[in-house]
Amino acid sequence: MINIQFSASETAWATYQDTIVAACAAHDLEIDLRQDHAAENVDYIIYAPTSDLQDFAPYTRCKAVLSLWAGVERIVGNSTLTMPLCRMVDPGLTAGMVEWVAGHVLRYHLDLDRSLQTQDLWAPKIPPLAQQRQVSILGLGALGTACATALAALGFSVTGWSRSAKHVEGITSQHGEAGLKSALQNAEILVLLLPDTGATQNILNADRLALLPQGARIINPGRGTLIDDAALLDSLNSGHIAHATLDVFRQEPLPQEHPYWAHPHVTVTPHIAAETRPITASDMLALNIARSESGQPLLHEVDRQLGY
Amino acid sequence: MINIQFSASETAWATYQDTIVAACAAHDLEIDLRQDHAAENVDYIIYAPTSDLQDFAPYTRCKAVLSLWAGVERIVGNSTLTMPLCRMVDPGLTAGMVEWVAGHVLRYHLDLDRSLQTQDLWAPKIPPLAQQRQVSILGLGALGTACATALAALGFSVTGWSRSAKHVEGITSQHGEAGLKSALQNAEILVLLLPDTGATQNILNADRLALLPQGARIINPGRGTLIDDAALLDSLNSGHIAHATLDVFRQEPLPQEHPYWAHPHVTVTPHIAAETRPITASDMLALNIARSESGQPLLHEVDRQLGY
Repeated sequence: MINIQFSASETAWATYQDTIVAACAAHDLEIDLRQDHAAENVDYIIYAPTSDLQDFAPYTRCKAVLSLWAGVERIVGNSTLTMPLCRMVDPGLTAGMVEWVAGHVLRYHLDLDRSLQTQDLWAPKIPPLAQQRQVSILGLGALGTACATALAALGFSVTGWSRSAKHVEGITSQHGEAGLKSALQNAEILVLLLPDTGATQNILNADRLALLPQGARIINPGRGTLIDDAALLDSLNSGHIAHATLDVFRQEPLPQEHPYWAHPHVTVTPHIAAETRPITASDMLALNIARSESGQPLLHEVDRQLGY
Repeated sequence: MINIQFSASETAWATYQDTIVAACAAHDLEIDLRQDHAAENVDYIIYAPTSDLQDFAPYTRCKAVLSLWAGVERIVGNSTLTMPLCRMVDPGLTAGMVEWVAGHVLRYHLDLDRSLQTQDLWAPKIPPLAQQRQVSILGLGALGTACATALAALGFSVTGWSRSAKHVEGITSQHGEAGLKSALQNAEILVLLLPDTGATQNILNADRLALLPQGARIINPGRGTLIDDAALLDSLNSGHIAHATLDVFRQEPLPQEHPYWAHPHVTVTPHIAAETRPITASDMLALNIARSESGQPLLHEVDRQLGY
């Protein structure tokens, strides 16, 4: 029997309890999954920073701490955490992001918002084909590349931009400052999938918003810090930017009084595009426990020097 | 100089004039495209039934009549039409259908209608992954197969049904009466892409609607005759069917008084999913003229016996 301590929020427990048990059964693991194991009996800890757990020292026989979150910045420096630490790399997160981005790009492309306002009006307006629709994606990491590839497969003319040169099959790749200008100038629909670094803060500022074509639409499932919010509101109010769909914000939940909520040309979604998915994440946890139990190296083990 | 007579509506002329000229230029064809050539000077006729042209006899040197429409039933029996007749097969129509279907399937999958109602509400609700979402497509012709393949590429669990057995890579294929029952019982989202034949009239009747799971959503870009409208309205009113997106109707434009217009769980779109696209259709016309001029056989020439 493998004793697994679940240390995260009550909400996470409700979400994950059954799927972790099912995933472990699928990997032929006999487990006892609880929130209240005695520390000295625990073989593995499944952890999120939403738990109270601060002191890992009593978990004397624990073989690994498996983070439920991709980011481990809040425990990587914990000196009591002497056992191996693994971050979550969830294939479901990438799949979900691709679906969310494809859905909102197609929504803009097909002008679905207009379709959903029943108007008692038979006024056919045929959208262009995707091949005539220019979509630019800023950021060609795992998520940006997956989205770019999926949109290209749907027929869109996709340009991807990254700071350093990258090649992605089926899309136009741009890099550096000149490449950014070109990616923005073409973008009827702009998707932001850059990480949050010093270099990307407010990357979409007033000057760069002005480079976008008149009537451009913006989709941000990346980071709230990528956008200069005041500049975006100005561009929306002037009509230069036709619409924005925003999933991430500097402050979350987005405050009630924030002008994005009531803006007629903004769609707010509550940080749902990049979500760890219980089924695929549970499978990843079970896989790692199975590997550990059979003497194989852990997947996605954190390098304490690098911090990820 | 190749003289091309354009015989369709004024609207079609406004839409196609520039794209046909551009497409012919791209095929290195020197053409004179007009609506009013003298009949005896005409080399090719581009035709739609919306024109007045009934008598093709005066077009003595005309090498081919190129239909702007896929359906040629209104001229195939014209005894004055003695020259080759080609129907339109537009790759843009298939591409546009795939985009429209993918957009509306993702709209249902991601619950976008809810997202678009700004609610000042931060209430994250994560949809399942596409791999957990069952989509059934009735009809595996060119359009159904293209849509099934695109949805499978996006990760959806796709079941396709056709009257006789077919194999489509990456999807579950069903056929016959038993297969139809299975395809309906699984369908969280049902897409109708069957042709209009005696056998498909009212195929989605009250009995078959009852086979769909509670809360199923229906997308019909196929034919208006596929659905028993009264039965669908009953199913929507009882809540068994959660929502329907309908692009085709028995009577078009859909009459103002039709209950679909005002129904809170119906989205009406004005027959826009299957549309010939000027750019790709013009390229097909130019390609056929170029083939004819260089002595190659015409594409998509109609068999007068078969009628298509």
